[in-house]
Amino acid sequence: MENFADRLIAAIRNKNSPVAVGLDPYFQLIPNAIKQPFTSLLKQNSLEYAASVILEFNRQVIDVVAPHVGIVKPQIAFYEMYGWWGVKSYAETILYAKEKGLIVIGDVKRGDVPSTAEAYAAAHIGETRIGDVTAIPFAADAVTVNPYMGSDSLLPFIQTAKGHGKGIFVLVKTSNPLSGEFQDILCGQKKLHEIIAEKTNEWGSTLMGSEGYSAIGAVVGATYPQEIATLRKIMPKTYFLVPGYGAQGATAKDIKPCFNPDGLGAIINASRSILYAYNTTPWKEKYTMSTWKNATEEAVIGMNEELRGVSFKF
Amino acid sequence: MENFADRLIAAIRNKNSPVAVGLDPYFQLIPNAIKQPFTSLLKQNSLEYAASVILEFNRQVIDVVAPHVGIVKPQIAFYEMYGWWGVKSYAETILYAKEKGLIVIGDVKRGDVPSTAEAYAAAHIGETRIGDVTAIPFAADAVTVNPYMGSDSLLPFIQTAKGHGKGIFVLVKTSNPLSGEFQDILCGQKKLHEIIAEKTNEWGSTLMGSEGYSAIGAVVGATYPQEIATLRKIMPKTYFLVPGYGAQGATAKDIKPCFNPDGLGAIINASRSILYAYNTTPWKEKYTMSTWKNATEEAVIGMNEELRGVSFKF
Repeated sequence: MENFADRLIAAIRNKNSPVAVGLDPYFQLIPNAIKQPFTSLLKQNSLEYAASVILEFNRQVIDVVAPHVGIVKPQIAFYEMYGWWGVKSYAETILYAKEKGLIVIGDVKRGDVPSTAEAYAAAHIGETRIGDVTAIPFAADAVTVNPYMGSDSLLPFIQTAKGHGKGIFVLVKTSNPLSGEFQDILCGQKKLHEIIAEKTNEWGSTLMGSEGYSAIGAVVGATYPQEIATLRKIMPKTYFLVPGYGAQGATAKDIKPCFNPDGLGAIINASRSILYAYNTTPWKEKYTMSTWKNATEEAVIGMNEELRGVSFKF
Repeated sequence: MENFADRLIAAIRNKNSPVAVGLDPYFQLIPNAIKQPFTSLLKQNSLEYAASVILEFNRQVIDVVAPHVGIVKPQIAFYEMYGWWGVKSYAETILYAKEKGLIVIGDVKRGDVPSTAEAYAAAHIGETRIGDVTAIPFAADAVTVNPYMGSDSLLPFIQTAKGHGKGIFVLVKTSNPLSGEFQDILCGQKKLHEIIAEKTNEWGSTLMGSEGYSAIGAVVGATYPQEIATLRKIMPKTYFLVPGYGAQGATAKDIKPCFNPDGLGAIINASRSILYAYNTTPWKEKYTMSTWKNATEEAVIGMNEELRGVSFKF
């Protein structure tokens, strides 16, 4: 079974892009032309209506970005907000992206006591046994996980990743403004997130691919460039999933230290700045809601070019 | 709008019980008589089959326990493992429990950057706006949340709880064997979980009910009795949601310090020891799978009596 990190690197090389497009559907920003065919559903069941709209939007986004990127990252919160209908759209978005040959990172940030973590891992990157049969609940290639509860809360995800050629990304230093409140607390000589980085590196050593990277990655926010270089040193062979680029304010220069000298080691996520480029500077000067696909394509090509200028190669 | 803590205390007094029955369906332990009517679904779609079985099991469990307890706590991982069909059963389990007058704590352990946390809060304890209408995705009264990402990742949950008479329980000290790995790290003079307890107390002060307790609660594992007394002091007016009783090994004596002198302040969760009592010591000597309801009822009554011996009143 191919290691997840090797599959990831192959996808990055294939498209010559370290970009992960975040599939975070904001209903109010989805073009009217996509909503229109579903209008009759609205009066019956508004959650089903919205869930149908976001799935169709995602399919169209995937069609636009798939020639340019190898990775998408749906954030499950934006699906759960439409109830189980939304979660159905999450499942179907993953299947559609995989049909198009994309790697899918489910941004679910799960974490729980061991028996529960086992259920989450089966749900998102594994399979569920029902009597004599097995089924795949959600077909993501990797998920994000929260380490607060300790190693035993992550071990079932690591085991499941190992058994299914999948991966995980451990929250180490997140991109939000107050991420330092607990993550930067000094515990003796080290910050808490540095201790978690050391553990992530240790967990990762059990799941190395042939390209020299681990299937156990780390979430490292682009909004904290001063921490990135330290984290790169603590976790030299860990793939970084880097949120915060674009809408959250980080630039290509900020994320340069995420990459190793081999040009590998980081996936840069952008969501709103790609999906709603038609509504975002500088594309909004040129495009409108009805030409949103052109704006999205131009934005993703532009991001690729910007990142190719920063990294040596991918 | 009634404060969640007041609603919680009313439910506890009404049933004279601080027990929250954990609705964690283990497919292989669900009695055959419940599975039988759904057998024809198995060949078409095993996830839909299992999801239908667990919903029916939950309904029967709720019917058995509702006369004796005021609170149930479905753990969403055990639903996500059956895909979106499972999540549908989660949603419908909540609705059924609420029809029976129960308080529902959704054990979801969510936490994310502010814009995403807003979506999670809307999903689980709030409402979603779709154009001109609003809808309720999941109707839980409270959810568990993970604090690792910082205050700004929890604020949307707190705001939503405030706006909808709902509550949250912040993971402070969890019940799993390795919870101390990060939660007990010394940060200066204090353990990390004590710092998070202080913050939880501070957040809670903004959402106090008329009974003197806050709608912002804390998860405190029964498996760490030596920490409980300290946490009770740091968070005197915080409701504790206490996992670890029963199947995880903690006894009534262990959880005594969770309660305040007023007999209030804690909800004690038990899942497997109630749901699968027919398969658990001592009930398994007396009952079989076909008499599981008697075993479950006897187990919940037994747990109530044991806890009434520990606390002064509820």
